[in-house]
Amino acid sequence: MPLKALFFDVFGTLVDWRTGVACEAQRLLEPRGLSRDWPAFADAWRGEYQAGMEPIRSGAMPFVPLDAIHRRMLEAVLPRFGLDDLDEEMRAELNLAWHRLDAWPDVPGGLTRLRQNFLLAPVSNGNIAIQVDLARRNGFIFDAILGSEVARDYKPKPIVYQSAVATLNLQPEDCLMVAAHSYDLEAAARHGLRTAHVARPNEHGPGKGEARPSVPVDIAAADLEALADTLGA
Amino acid sequence: MPLKALFFDVFGTLVDWRTGVACEAQRLLEPRGLSRDWPAFADAWRGEYQAGMEPIRSGAMPFVPLDAIHRRMLEAVLPRFGLDDLDEEMRAELNLAWHRLDAWPDVPGGLTRLRQNFLLAPVSNGNIAIQVDLARRNGFIFDAILGSEVARDYKPKPIVYQSAVATLNLQPEDCLMVAAHSYDLEAAARHGLRTAHVARPNEHGPGKGEARPSVPVDIAAADLEALADTLGA
Repeated sequence: MPLKALFFDVFGTLVDWRTGVACEAQRLLEPRGLSRDWPAFADAWRGEYQAGMEPIRSGAMPFVPLDAIHRRMLEAVLPRFGLDDLDEEMRAELNLAWHRLDAWPDVPGGLTRLRQNFLLAPVSNGNIAIQVDLARRNGFIFDAILGSEVARDYKPKPIVYQSAVATLNLQPEDCLMVAAHSYDLEAAARHGLRTAHVARPNEHGPGKGEARPSVPVDIAAADLEALADTLGA
Repeated sequence: MPLKALFFDVFGTLVDWRTGVACEAQRLLEPRGLSRDWPAFADAWRGEYQAGMEPIRSGAMPFVPLDAIHRRMLEAVLPRFGLDDLDEEMRAELNLAWHRLDAWPDVPGGLTRLRQNFLLAPVSNGNIAIQVDLARRNGFIFDAILGSEVARDYKPKPIVYQSAVATLNLQPEDCLMVAAHSYDLEAAARHGLRTAHVARPNEHGPGKGEARPSVPVDIAAADLEALADTLGA
């Protein structure tokens, strides 16, 4: 069966959130005389991610876009870094750090090649506004933005993968989920999608990331250029 | 206030549905010895459009994507053209006519210019799969696909415009609704969006289309190239 669509995880897989969030926090806060361990700040903020989505995945809270969850996560983290005094305007600005992340170097070229043969869509937990800003910043061209905001739930809930497939009028086996995270690929495979792991060995800092998948996948690629090679794109 | 995003109606505004549906029906059915007035068939099919969406807009029926409504509309129209005998496979194939429409000649160039200055998104009643196929066929590049499937309701219901604005984290006055239909622009303006009318005087056949708006609009343009001129793009 020929593949028709490629679905991409975004944070960690296409963009380097850790460097981006650290740089943006530094850019915004050091002029105010605030100096901190910004990579640790980025790690702490991202560290609230799964817990932040869990009340929605469990049904305890109604769906809100990731921008709103990022903001709640930020509120939890600021006191730990002695940043309780930031005003509302700065908190809102800091929250936009997740809209201002740079791609890993292989991504723009890899996506351009892959788009010649396949439909491309992020299937991310990030909301559409985040994806639009990241795509414009990095020159990504997608056919549609799918994922949490279309499904109104968060990965790895089945509906997010199923909704992405159904929205394109496709079957699960027509679609390849591409991610640097085994838990995402495991969930996608459970619902019949094909899977490709992309190694991001430095996602959480030097040597702290998935250099290889911990679950069975259809393709394990070093980066998106290698994925394009494998797929003949 | 500078404009940030342009929202596009699609059927009639960006693509010529009448010619496209007529050609596709002819291509599929004449080899079976079925000869009809295909433009009249396209008109009749499209003629069921507002009635097809109304049960969803009124809340009498749950949301389904436009592909499903097009199919119901087709079932209503086939008997009128003596086409009751078509098999399921052909009915499904005919329904894809709405995925295979060509753009009006000014559209690809106009969108390319406009995209240099603004975010672009269809805000159409067509579902995402239709928009993806039309975009690929015609070389449109959008930042996101918004509209009925994200809002889970149909224009001119307020939620469709409001959801498009909110999904991009914008304010209504940041956004320009672009359409060839005054009813669409009137609804968008009522919710604070800016509006641009594009003349499509032949949408429903020669001389049968809106050559000018019947409601107040911010911009009235002859086509998308003229709109790009007006917006300095």
